Formats: sequence, C-alpha cells, structure tokens
Amino acid sequence: MSIAVGLMSGTSLDGVDAALVEIKGEGETLQVELIDFICLAYDEGLKDEIRDCIALEKSNVQKICSLNFKLGMKFADAVIEVCQKGKMPIGSVDFIGSHGQTIWHQPKQEANLVSSTLQIGEPSVVAFRTGIKVVSNFRVMDVAAGGQGAPLVPYSEWLLYRDQNKNRVFQNIGGIGNLTYLPKNGQPNEIQAFDTGPGNMIIDYACQKLFGLQFDEDGKIAASGKINQDMLKECMSHPFLLKNPPKTTGREEFGAPYVDGLLKKFSSIPKADFIRTVTMFTAQSIVEAYKGFILPKSDIDQIIIGGGGAYNKALIKMIQNELGTDIEVMTQEELGYSSEAKEAIAFAILAHVTLHHLPSNLPGVTGALKPVILGQITSAS
Amino acid sequence: MSIAVGLMSGTSLDGVDAALVEIKGEGETLQVELIDFICLAYDEGLKDEIRDCIALEKSNVQKICSLNFKLGMKFADAVIEVCQKGKMPIGSVDFIGSHGQTIWHQPKQEANLVSSTLQIGEPSVVAFRTGIKVVSNFRVMDVAAGGQGAPLVPYSEWLLYRDQNKNRVFQNIGGIGNLTYLPKNGQPNEIQAFDTGPGNMIIDYACQKLFGLQFDEDGKIAASGKINQDMLKECMSHPFLLKNPPKTTGREEFGAPYVDGLLKKFSSIPKADFIRTVTMFTAQSIVEAYKGFILPKSDIDQIIIGGGGAYNKALIKMIQNELGTDIEVMTQEELGYSSEAKEAIAFAILAHVTLHHLPSNLPGVTGALKPVILGQITSAS
Repeated sequence: MSIAVGLMSGTSLDGVDAALVEIKGEGETLQVELIDFICLAYDEGLKDEIRDCIALEKSNVQKICSLNFKLGMKFADAVIEVCQKGKMPIGSVDFIGSHGQTIWHQPKQEANLVSSTLQIGEPSVVAFRTGIKVVSNFRVMDVAAGGQGAPLVPYSEWLLYRDQNKNRVFQNIGGIGNLTYLPKNGQPNEIQAFDTGPGNMIIDYACQKLFGLQFDEDGKIAASGKINQDMLKECMSHPFLLKNPPKTTGREEFGAPYVDGLLKKFSSIPKADFIRTVTMFTAQSIVEAYKGFILPKSDIDQIIIGGGGAYNKALIKMIQNELGTDIEVMTQEELGYSSEAKEAIAFAILAHVTLHHLPSNLPGVTGALKPVILGQITSAS
Repeated sequence: MSIAVGLMSGTSLDGVDAALVEIKGEGETLQVELIDFICLAYDEGLKDEIRDCIALEKSNVQKICSLNFKLGMKFADAVIEVCQKGKMPIGSVDFIGSHGQTIWHQPKQEANLVSSTLQIGEPSVVAFRTGIKVVSNFRVMDVAAGGQGAPLVPYSEWLLYRDQNKNRVFQNIGGIGNLTYLPKNGQPNEIQAFDTGPGNMIIDYACQKLFGLQFDEDGKIAASGKINQDMLKECMSHPFLLKNPPKTTGREEFGAPYVDGLLKKFSSIPKADFIRTVTMFTAQSIVEAYKGFILPKSDIDQIIIGGGGAYNKALIKMIQNELGTDIEVMTQEELGYSSEAKEAIAFAILAHVTLHHLPSNLPGVTGALKPVILGQITSAS
C-alpha cells in the first residue's frame, strides 16, 4: 500500500490539480482510492507568466528558467494543501507524480526543429519543499522513443476501469472529445485511444458569441432549439471525422476561426437552433467515431462519459439516441469515479508504475517504437 | 566496480566532453580511472541554435523545446563514440552522468523572476538511444535548496584528490580562475571553493587584440615583456579581489569591456609589456586569494594547476615566484590526472554518488541550506 499525490496542470492554465490517493497492490491488480482532491488556482500574475512562456513572441529563456522554478513552488503548495485537506501527514506520502505544465509540443520535425515536447514545474523544487520523492516529465520518454508523447492516460484507465465481461469506451468530453476503448478482459496492446473531434469547444464558443454565456448549462439552450440539417451536413463533412485513428485534433481545427466561419455562413439560423445543431454535431462526431473505428471490429457494451460535457444533458441524450438502446451510456460519477480528479490520479498511477521499473506508454496509441519507462525520478534526501 | 560515462557541455559551446571511466569502491573510498575521453564538436548550425537559446532576444519556447531534444541526441552520440574509442561495449556501461548545457542562470531574485537555473540536453533521449540509465540536471536541486547551484566539482575533487598529509589547493585556470582548497585529512564541510578572478580571459583577449593570436602560447610573449607597475597597480585595485568568499565572477567583470578600457588607458605601453602585465595581474590575483583567504587560517603544501592556463609557463612561473619556495606548484597532469577530462569525470562521479542516495553539494561552498541529493534519474527500460 502506498500514499501518493498526482499533480496535473492543464492547458486551461486555471491552476494545478492535486489528487491524494491510496494505491493498493501493484501491476495489473493495482487499485486506487481517492482520499481528497483540490485545484490550487493560479493568480493572474502567474497566469500571465505562463501565457508569456507558451507564446512564440513573448517567451524567452530567462522567463522559462524562472517559471520552471515558480511552478515547482506552486506544485509543492498544492501537495501540502491537499494533504492538509485530506488530514494526511505529509511525511506519510510515499511519492508524487507530476505531469507539469506543457509549454510547447512540437509533434513533427519542421525545418531544423526536431519532434519534441516541453513540460515545466521543476521537480527538484517540489521534492525539496515537500521532502517527497517526485516522478515527473512523463511525456519526453515516449517522444524520445518516436511517439507523440500523448495520450498517456489510457494505461491508467486500463488499470482502473477495464472489465472482465464488458467492452468499455471511456469518452472524455473536454474542449476536444477523446475516447479510450478497453475491450473486455483485454491486454494493454488491445487498447485504442484517439480524439473523436470537438468536445465542448464549439458549443462553449458559440454560447459566448450568441448568448454571452460561458457554456450551455445542462444543455438547456440546445434542448430548446431545432436542428438545421444543412448546417449539420456541412459540419459532418469535416475531414477530421474520416481520418483513421490514431489521430489528434485541437483548437487549430475546431477553435474560434472554424466557429466564426459557421456563424457567418449560417447567420440566419435562430440562436438556439445554432446551439442545438453544434451540439448534435458534437454528439454525431462522437458516435461516428464508434461506428467507423470501433464497432466494425467489436461490440461496445458501455460508454462512460467524463469531462465537462458529461453535464450537458442534451448532448448525452443525443449520444444515446444516435447509438440506439443496445449500448449503456453513463457518466464517470455514476460508475463511482471522480471525473475532475481523473487526470491527476492518472499521473499518481503512472508514477507508481515507473517506480516499479515498468513501462506505461502504449505504442499502439502514441506511435512509439516500443514500450518505455516514463518519467524522471527526483529525491532531495 | 562500475563503468560510467560523464558528459559536460561547457559555456564555450565548442562541443560535449565525454569521459569513459571505471569507478571502484564507493563513498569516501571511491577511486576513478579514466579509460578514454573525447570532445564531440558541435557543428556551426548547432552552435547557432545554442547561441539563440541563451540570448534573451533570440530565444523562444519552440527553439528551447527542440534544442533540448537535439542536444540529447548529440550527447547520446558522444556516449557511443567514447565507448567505441575506449573499446567498451555500450551494454557494459552502468550509467551516464550528464551535466547538460546551461542556457540560463538566474542567481538572484529580480522583479518577478525567482532564483533558478536551466540546463538542457534531454536525458530521456540519451537514455533511450544508449539504453543506459542517466543521472542529469545536477544544479537545480542545489538551487531549490537555496544554493547558487555552483560550484559542484569540489566534492568530486575531494573524493579524488584529498591527501592525508598535505593541504592542497586545486587551482583551475580557465577563462576565470577558481580554486578548491582541500585541507589534509579534511572532511567535505572543510572544503573551500571560490573564484579567484581572471584566468585566461584577459590574456587571451589582449593577445587577440594586440597580436591577432588566440592565446599566448607557452607564455612566450609574456616572457619577452616587462611589467608596467602603474597598470599592474590599477589592475590589482579591482574590487573583486577584496571580496570575501564564497564569490563568483565572470565575463561581466573581466571580459572585453574591461580589457578594452585597459588597452585604451595604457595604449602607450609596448605590446609585449601589456601582455606581461596582465599575466602578472592574473598571477597576483590568484596568489592574493591564497594570502587573503586561505593562508591566514592554514598552511598550503601543494598547489595543483589545471585548465588551459596550466600551459602558460610564464604565468606558472610568476605564481611560483609570488608564492615563495615553501609551496610546491605542479600541474594536474604532473599529479597523474587529465586536466581536459576533469569536469566530465566529475559528473560521472556525482552520478555515482546520487545513485547511492547520497548528497554531493557542499552547503559551505554553494550557499545551500543543507546537503541534498543532486540530479534526476532517467531510465528507458
């Protein structure tokens, strides 16, 4: 049995997630219990420093050098705080798994730039300030091995969520939608994982533009509108949907410029209809991914939805309707797991695997040449 | 017994030094034998990329992300090459100690920048390509512990060069002069180490300006000139010489602007006299450091000189004359140790110490709050 903290600082730049967990067993019999969870928010000054360091024009070596240490201090604070909240003496924590803050990802060779990825949040600072061993910087080894360095969460999903009797799809709906398919009684090399297309990205941006709202709460706006078939047809012709997995997408394909284009072209559509239509696009792009790339080879028994999109009732209902009744659709919370703590928990698990000298990348998912041990180990004493 | 490779990529940006060593014993009885040594030169393109990444105006996050991986590939090449030269199967190497390339050092808090240091040369790339465990990134933990992150070599000098019966000073004469004082039969906490002032920096720059030569070979020019006492007096009044150790200096105090000032003020002095005078300044600044900060508390039995300055016979003779006859002056080679491989060897030793879970910083030397284990451990399999 070990006590660990997983740390995740995401692309939203909101703050750092810290999950305090108890890990029982090891290898394939590993079990994890969430003791407590916090998200330690970044203040505006720190957010500005991160924004500078991820911007080509504003970043420089001095800012990156300093921010690496400053984020390390913040990560240490998050560890201390989640331990206090969970009433866990800090000396009882065996290790920390820290993802770090991604400040650049260079997926492909380009001119004299090589494939590479860069996460910061100095583990030495975390280790010195907490007195705890840190495993960090998980993505670099997969990239060194010829992979994309992502996604890394599927292996921990396999450890936690695989089932003896059910083919499960874990559908995450964040800004982008992505899935992990865990066949019943399957081995790690049978896992599939890829991006399905837009998650909340289009819906949220359209809500801001049309209603001045951050998002469509509970999917109420979508529920009140009608589908515009012309627009839906145009959306569903997006070339990303037909690409063979493994595949990834992002803001460059479904961000502001794309939605602005739709808003302009379909400006005559009632606002609520626009929201319902992009919600249906999101639902269909997810379901088409199953129909195109999973169901031809295998049944799906259960779809478990996590991420902010799990709270959009209209979206979930659409996914259910599009799928038909044979497949059970549920949220991660209904299955008994925390959706918000999921990624932070994943990096506690990956750290545990690394400390047992075992690989945790999935070459079939990341494109790496072979399984490798992820992360670097840092200890002050 | 273990076989290791130490890697050092210095501030000269010439290339990466790789020392293949055999390490016997552990802890205080450790012994090291150099099997082979190479310096793998950087091509001009790579040098330009490094120069961009250390420059405030030209550096950015994308260049740093890529260069981190590219240097990792070069470091892996250096390991493979030194093993070939030393006829050592790469599978026989137990570990690599890699210093990395320093691209920024922020010694003090300044506005919203925190004390920090940044070395790159991705250890995951080195570990994946060589199949060898890598210990890297030694300076960050000392900085995390409140230290300057430098100098780190003194602990390995203590392990290798301390003597039961002799108080030894190791005087390195690179661009800057720096010393390590190892009292006879002394413990790590009795080590002193600090910069003495200019090394070859002033002599080399003046040779370029006055003679179009890269340096004063064997000190022949200095040997042919006379001392100008006025200029020597002015040089010796430099405030750095009186500062109490631990202290560090660099190009900002003894670089081009300083020498240009001297050349302008003392333009009437014959060229060879100028070279002899700055050589004497270098010699006296070194000897004054002993007289001011070592000899008041303890005798010195032996001074062992390393670095490029060890080949400047005029300089060595001046140091001997200034010291008098009681103190033996010799070069590192005369003691039986390679001068060029010294730093690369040091990082193989520091890696060995880290893998034995022992600290290797010297708080009295770096200013750290306490001894800490340096470096991060990375292994692909």
